[in-house]
Amino acid sequence: MHNPFLGKDVISILDFDRKALEILFEYTDRARRYLNTKLRVLEGKVVALAFFEPSTRTRLSFEVAAKRLGADVIGFTGEEAISVAKGENLADTIRMLNSYANLIVLRHRFEGAAKFAAEIADVPVVNAGDGKQHHPTQAMIDLYTVRTLFETIDGLTYAVVGDLRYGRAATSFIYGLTLFKPRKIYLISPPLLRARPEVLETLRMKGIPFEERSGIEDVISEIDVLYVTRIQKERFPDPMEYEKVKGSYRITVDLLRNAKPELKILHPLPRVDEIDFRVDETKHAAYFIQASYGVPVRMALLTLILGGEL
Amino acid sequence: MHNPFLGKDVISILDFDRKALEILFEYTDRARRYLNTKLRVLEGKVVALAFFEPSTRTRLSFEVAAKRLGADVIGFTGEEAISVAKGENLADTIRMLNSYANLIVLRHRFEGAAKFAAEIADVPVVNAGDGKQHHPTQAMIDLYTVRTLFETIDGLTYAVVGDLRYGRAATSFIYGLTLFKPRKIYLISPPLLRARPEVLETLRMKGIPFEERSGIEDVISEIDVLYVTRIQKERFPDPMEYEKVKGSYRITVDLLRNAKPELKILHPLPRVDEIDFRVDETKHAAYFIQASYGVPVRMALLTLILGGEL
Amino acid sequence: MHNPFLGKDVISILDFDRKALEILFEYTDRARRYLNTKLRVLEGKVVALAFFEPSTRTRLSFEVAAKRLGADVIGFTGEEAISVAKGENLADTIRMLNSYANLIVLRHRFEGAAKFAAEIADVPVVNAGDGKQHHPTQAMIDLYTVRTLFETIDGLTYAVVGDLRYGRAATSFIYGLTLFKPRKIYLISPPLLRARPEVLETLRMKGIPFEERSGIEDVISEIDVLYVTRIQKERFPDPMEYEKVKGSYRITVDLLRNAKPELKILHPLPRVDEIDFRVDETKHAAYFIQASYGVPVRMALLTLILGGEL
Repeated sequence: MHNPFLGKDVISILDFDRKALEILFEYTDRARRYLNTKLRVLEGKVVALAFFEPSTRTRLSFEVAAKRLGADVIGFTGEEAISVAKGENLADTIRMLNSYANLIVLRHRFEGAAKFAAEIADVPVVNAGDGKQHHPTQAMIDLYTVRTLFETIDGLTYAVVGDLRYGRAATSFIYGLTLFKPRKIYLISPPLLRARPEVLETLRMKGIPFEERSGIEDVISEIDVLYVTRIQKERFPDPMEYEKVKGSYRITVDLLRNAKPELKILHPLPRVDEIDFRVDETKHAAYFIQASYGVPVRMALLTLILGGEL
Repeated sequence: MHNPFLGKDVISILDFDRKALEILFEYTDRARRYLNTKLRVLEGKVVALAFFEPSTRTRLSFEVAAKRLGADVIGFTGEEAISVAKGENLADTIRMLNSYANLIVLRHRFEGAAKFAAEIADVPVVNAGDGKQHHPTQAMIDLYTVRTLFETIDGLTYAVVGDLRYGRAATSFIYGLTLFKPRKIYLISPPLLRARPEVLETLRMKGIPFEERSGIEDVISEIDVLYVTRIQKERFPDPMEYEKVKGSYRITVDLLRNAKPELKILHPLPRVDEIDFRVDETKHAAYFIQASYGVPVRMALLTLILGGEL
Repeated sequence: MHNPFLGKDVISILDFDRKALEILFEYTDRARRYLNTKLRVLEGKVVALAFFEPSTRTRLSFEVAAKRLGADVIGFTGEEAISVAKGENLADTIRMLNSYANLIVLRHRFEGAAKFAAEIADVPVVNAGDGKQHHPTQAMIDLYTVRTLFETIDGLTYAVVGDLRYGRAATSFIYGLTLFKPRKIYLISPPLLRARPEVLETLRMKGIPFEERSGIEDVISEIDVLYVTRIQKERFPDPMEYEKVKGSYRITVDLLRNAKPELKILHPLPRVDEIDFRVDETKHAAYFIQASYGVPVRMALLTLILGGEL
């Protein structure tokens, strides 16, 4: 089998094609069989987790993935990351990790940080989220979740809801969908938080039907996959503006009354209050299953990049 | 052998009986033989340490215990724990850990946090201290220490000294003693920091002789086990009040002049100044031995819960 | 082979002699062959990293070294270290680590902290930097780098540049050189930051030719090894004073025009701006190679102390 991930950096979901992702998904299916086993696939490898921006969920799932595969894990986060960032330039930090580890997982708030790191490091760099657009491993998990729930990613109607302007998970998911053949994508956000021009341009180029909307209600009955993300108050210059819109982007049992029975709700988590807790009990809630795929998808990815077998 | 810990949550020491603890103690005896060995008992298991409230001592001893048994360990503490707590509700955090790990160790300042977590998680939850009453693994260590030093827990006279109102280690130790047959327990504290009514009620129900006291001096000559805990200045509305009482709860060589030769002093550590350093040199000081049992007791407990053999 | 490190504490580079270091260097050569292998040399051992003062670079390289050798690693740093330090006295913390681990790596800002810890602990203590003078494992890395680049440490002309008064890496390197036969050492610093009297005294006692200087330019053409360290603004009572001198201690391509072709530049890293980035491209830059020896030197040291074989 050709391994399109071997030795590669993972900067954007758009670095890969559908075929590559299908290989990843097959590996993920296999990884799920080993969730109670200590493997030796990556024994002798060191994975460095450099979380300049905190994300416990992403960090821990990479850590579990690497350890389940037999790799050793080092890294920093939180206060320590801040002091590393203050103490030296990113290039020198990456050189350090490059000399200690066989693979670097990087999270950073600056656009392009992962690409920059990949140019410096000899070892592969995996982007665990940088800037406003790219969080490719989250998109891999999201796409894998859809594929597992619906047995296909093609031909479904999607709605991506929330902050489409600054939310990297939402943007990466949309980018990921462009590698497949969705029937239609609704981009649902407050006018201030519309998807960026380059995202729309990518959708157009790939010939994917999409529509921008400000509300969910009118389209809820058409949707197969509802991808929800957080809207941060801080994005609004006027707090009153936020209070006015936030209700419209909250998923409630009431809103779901008109949904298809097969509708599934995804969310990259953590959520604040954009999904009502009562929704958890419905058959639509798929975000906890989705979260549980974080480890096996990352196991598959690390294995493929470092040339292991599952 | 029946394993009363198999798959169980550990929320309070009162969840177990004397027989269960005796099995734990036997396992601890065995674990102590392996303190220089990497075991494979829990290989393939992941233990999550979620320390919403910091405690380096407890965290590290759980970590060493899990690693010595071959488990992988993930987790968070300090600043990261604070930002996790801010970022999402506890239920969602527990669901995340539940999907990554085979066992969750939780420390939290809120009463009932461990029980709440146990209701949400499918995997076992071990309370590493929550609220004001429960720190069951500390009580297990303390009881094991007594058993090792005296070859019995029954028939001894105990004094539990310090903050009996808010101190969870002291309260858990008292609860633990009610599973055995102590000759008598002196509860020694400033009037403001007396043991809670439910603690006294438990003692009465189990028919254990006890007496509340404000000073140690009068009873020091009767005591076999002196369990000392810290009194925090912050508990006193008036700082002068604190200054007035603190001397009376300080263990000094002088105070010990009237002690039985076999008296042993325990302390859950860290201590500030409630035990004078000169006491360390006396044959009464047992708190460092006690601390050293933190790892083997927790090894035994993790092994039993996860169905391993030692 | 006699192992002069077996069971020993490592407090100062002066605790060892040339012969001991040569054994360490041979072990380091061997360790470099295993940088992609998980060894079992220290399986069953636990290494505690107690970083009361942050240093991600040193911490991570100890961590990788220990893990590559099969040891388990525990520890604390950053905020957690601060709260440990506030919560109890250093002696009790060391006793705790002593009961959990087979070796303690300690970093602390107080002079003599490592020696103090070594007196309390039964297990070996490795000083990962304390106070203003001692950072012995950094000196080992630096000396190993010189030996690897020049095939000898003897007979070369050295310049040690920067803060020689408070900089523990520079001081430890000078101490390390006194175990060999350098042709000459230039000590180059602003007058305020001259080497301490005890350093000069050691040089004199060992009969090593040295000269104190305030500038690099005049001697650059004589030097084989240029050891550069940071000068912190905070050292100067008058910030203007700092601005005046800092340029003179900055290594630029321009300055290197008069250097020998074989000149190599070392730096313990992280650097701020004391070495211009354009110098990185020159054949003189050896600081990244030097950094990459952090792991194998520490692997060799841990192996020797704990009685393993490589």
